[in-house]
Amino acid sequence: MTQHAPSAAPLYLDCDTGVDDSLALAYLLASPEIDLVGVGSVHGNIDAPQGAVNTLDLLALAGRDDVPVAVGAHDPLVGSYDGGVAHIHGANGVGDVTLPPSGRTPAAESAVELLLRLSHEHAGRLRVVAVGPLTNLALALREDPTLVERVLDVTVMGGAALHPGNVSPVAEANIANDPEAAAEVLAADWDVTLVPLDVTMANLLEETDRKTLLEAGTALAPWLGEVLDLYFGFHVPTFGRRCSALHDPLATAIAVGGVRATVAPRVPVVVDATDGPGRGQTLCDLRGLYAGHPDVPGARTRVVLATDSPLAPHLVERLRGL
Amino acid sequence: MTQHAPSAAPLYLDCDTGVDDSLALAYLLASPEIDLVGVGSVHGNIDAPQGAVNTLDLLALAGRDDVPVAVGAHDPLVGSYDGGVAHIHGANGVGDVTLPPSGRTPAAESAVELLLRLSHEHAGRLRVVAVGPLTNLALALREDPTLVERVLDVTVMGGAALHPGNVSPVAEANIANDPEAAAEVLAADWDVTLVPLDVTMANLLEETDRKTLLEAGTALAPWLGEVLDLYFGFHVPTFGRRCSALHDPLATAIAVGGVRATVAPRVPVVVDATDGPGRGQTLCDLRGLYAGHPDVPGARTRVVLATDSPLAPHLVERLRGL
Repeated sequence: MTQHAPSAAPLYLDCDTGVDDSLALAYLLASPEIDLVGVGSVHGNIDAPQGAVNTLDLLALAGRDDVPVAVGAHDPLVGSYDGGVAHIHGANGVGDVTLPPSGRTPAAESAVELLLRLSHEHAGRLRVVAVGPLTNLALALREDPTLVERVLDVTVMGGAALHPGNVSPVAEANIANDPEAAAEVLAADWDVTLVPLDVTMANLLEETDRKTLLEAGTALAPWLGEVLDLYFGFHVPTFGRRCSALHDPLATAIAVGGVRATVAPRVPVVVDATDGPGRGQTLCDLRGLYAGHPDVPGARTRVVLATDSPLAPHLVERLRGL
Repeated sequence: MTQHAPSAAPLYLDCDTGVDDSLALAYLLASPEIDLVGVGSVHGNIDAPQGAVNTLDLLALAGRDDVPVAVGAHDPLVGSYDGGVAHIHGANGVGDVTLPPSGRTPAAESAVELLLRLSHEHAGRLRVVAVGPLTNLALALREDPTLVERVLDVTVMGGAALHPGNVSPVAEANIANDPEAAAEVLAADWDVTLVPLDVTMANLLEETDRKTLLEAGTALAPWLGEVLDLYFGFHVPTFGRRCSALHDPLATAIAVGGVRATVAPRVPVVVDATDGPGRGQTLCDLRGLYAGHPDVPGARTRVVLATDSPLAPHLVERLRGL
């Protein structure tokens, strides 16, 4: 088990586990800077109950049965779960790999209840990382708007600022899977770091990296290498070779500090929750870039546009030990 | 008067004259590659009648009273003219400079009638350049959808693809001033080259350029230098110095061939005509950029993302002779 630094920050992860979510979860487990105090699942790559099962199985492989896992929202705030993306993440969310069953069941509490409870237990210190649709966070804010006062910061993998989307010309999947929730979360009075496709599509995991995981000879890492197989294939049309964008792991690495944002202006971000062609877009007001000073006074959302170092070597180094 | 090459292409200009429209008009007059056969005015920077007056005055200074000028749409397809942008283009559209009156009046025909007439007179050869809201073009297409068969190509200054907008985080003024019209024009079955902020904000005219115009000792160029004064001041907050983006002139230069587009994928472009936060955005499907092959088979809109050379020296060289 990873030894936490005494100062390790309590961190709640919200995810739709998911191949890259699996890497993000594992990265957090391998990071002494933080203490993973709970995980909530949400619809997205897979349905919320299966996301929780996957999370429990991965935690068990890492010897971390102590981390509570709660099932979150089955559906977005408006409409219904769309059935996930089996061609990307597999029918079971983990690349159609059958992980050894953990034998655990999810917590009796919901993801919203877990998040709110942890926010009280770690008031003022709790960090939140969300790498799926933002439904759980929006529901928690509706349930208790004072949540914002007890959360230190929020890091979200989602959106596209100046780069194309991935589920529409302008929309990224996490935001597009629940634009209404994203709009509420980004409008709330807390510090959010948005990690959009602008940077996640520039951080790739290669076959050599996957081989390192497969051959790690440890309990969890080889399974991650297996889980990545299908996902690597999905990326061939996009990148011309088997590889993987590191969406969710990059958000966790930025939250942990393993990768630093070098260009991350604080700007107003509005989510398009219309039924028009822009539905699901994160409209980041980056007009200040023309003048070279993009920060907008009063804005609380930091939009990451560049990072200091490639994630893959750092990620693999941490994961291979698990 | 500029001598046209025998092969000079007949070109109709649609504009809301406008400071940078004035430069675009002058550039066309100085370009032997094309023959300016008509100009239609449209609401936008200024009201359509004043745009026509400005156009007539500029043509007279250039000794080109032969070019017909017709007044176009007073209002966008939906809603009403918003009163223009006096702080940018002056209350009269030409930087509050009083140009010598041409003594001419606009044509009796409307801009739509002029465009349709020219499309018959130059069937298969007529080139169209639109540097204002696309209302006239949309109305002409409604009046006679076969227009697309008689127009060789259309070049539009408008939109923002992967760069921020200028009237909203995502919308550019020409498109935002009539999104419904832009949607119709971009959905029509003709070849459109869209020249968005991505490239126009990267082509600046500097004080030294303006000085060259002021001191040209010719009939029109010094007036253009005067007209630019207010506009240069408007750009200080954006660029940190007195200068001007060359929106409309860049579109004309690309149409003429004075500047060449080096990155200009043909992709589907959808205009957001909702009342949501993205209203007026040109959603360009550039997802293929991730794979390095952005062209989408069947798409007829070319989105200019990069050009081969800075416009300013070429523009000034042509304008100083007028």
